[in-house]
Amino acid sequence: MNAPIRILGVDPGLRRTGWGLVVMRGNSLSFVASGTIKAPLDGELAQRLLAIHVGLAEIVRVHQPDEAAVEQTFVNRDGAATLKLGQARGVAMLVPAQAGLEVAEYAPNAVKKTIVGAGHAEKAQIRAMVKVLLPRATFDTDDAADALAIAICHAHHRTARVLAKA
Amino acid sequence: MNAPIRILGVDPGLRRTGWGLVVMRGNSLSFVASGTIKAPLDGELAQRLLAIHVGLAEIVRVHQPDEAAVEQTFVNRDGAATLKLGQARGVAMLVPAQAGLEVAEYAPNAVKKTIVGAGHAEKAQIRAMVKVLLPRATFDTDDAADALAIAICHAHHRTARVLAKA
Repeated sequence: MNAPIRILGVDPGLRRTGWGLVVMRGNSLSFVASGTIKAPLDGELAQRLLAIHVGLAEIVRVHQPDEAAVEQTFVNRDGAATLKLGQARGVAMLVPAQAGLEVAEYAPNAVKKTIVGAGHAEKAQIRAMVKVLLPRATFDTDDAADALAIAICHAHHRTARVLAKA
Repeated sequence: MNAPIRILGVDPGLRRTGWGLVVMRGNSLSFVASGTIKAPLDGELAQRLLAIHVGLAEIVRVHQPDEAAVEQTFVNRDGAATLKLGQARGVAMLVPAQAGLEVAEYAPNAVKKTIVGAGHAEKAQIRAMVKVLLPRATFDTDDAADALAIAICHAHHRTARVLAKA
């Protein structure tokens, strides 16, 4: 049996950044931890980005993931919102890269399809399926549940990649 | 006379991040250094963000700026381009914040208006005016010239703010 692989999923945002850690032992996936980093709402942009960096760096330090995955932010028509998300996402991808980890990216539809089986799932469906796939999982926000979904998505896809290479 | 203030201007981008350092002694502004951080074009996104972080952190370490200013990225209609720029910008704002610096933001039009006197200046005009305002300035790319323009813009605006407070 292969060594366990610890996977960190991150759902970045300027207000709330969800994170979730799962561990893969062979084909079995289990919940380790999850949470939400809340950046100060009234802070300057640079201070909010710093809060995301400090929070995520601490999670990486404590939980020592082997691999990381981040949602490929949805690009909508609101340029200002996309820019804000991009800034949070830049910091969210930087932290695991600083720890020497590969950072995989998954489109929201790919995450939903892996978890729920359909590309257009509601948040409630994602939460419910995360609980089915990781019965011990707890999460304080939808962002933390989304982060666990991203980690699960990466676990499934990396297995497919490893099998394809074998 | 007040202590000299070292100002770092940054023009972030996923391919090239320009930076420029000026020093303000009283009302006199002079050029210190400028350059361009080039992220590996073929690298994964996280690796490119890491290159920007490593490069800017080294510049902050070597040049010890007192204040920093970043251009408020133009939000255009292309969501994918805005997202990319946002990611680079998030990292560019993070680095000076990690060093404890305040990070000011200026809209491109504000920068152009300060430097050229008009909100819709061409890149050639900005380069020419940077050379007029900082006769010793050298820059290897338009991004480095833009970064110097941002630093000059911050020098002007901070003086106005300090006078307004007096």
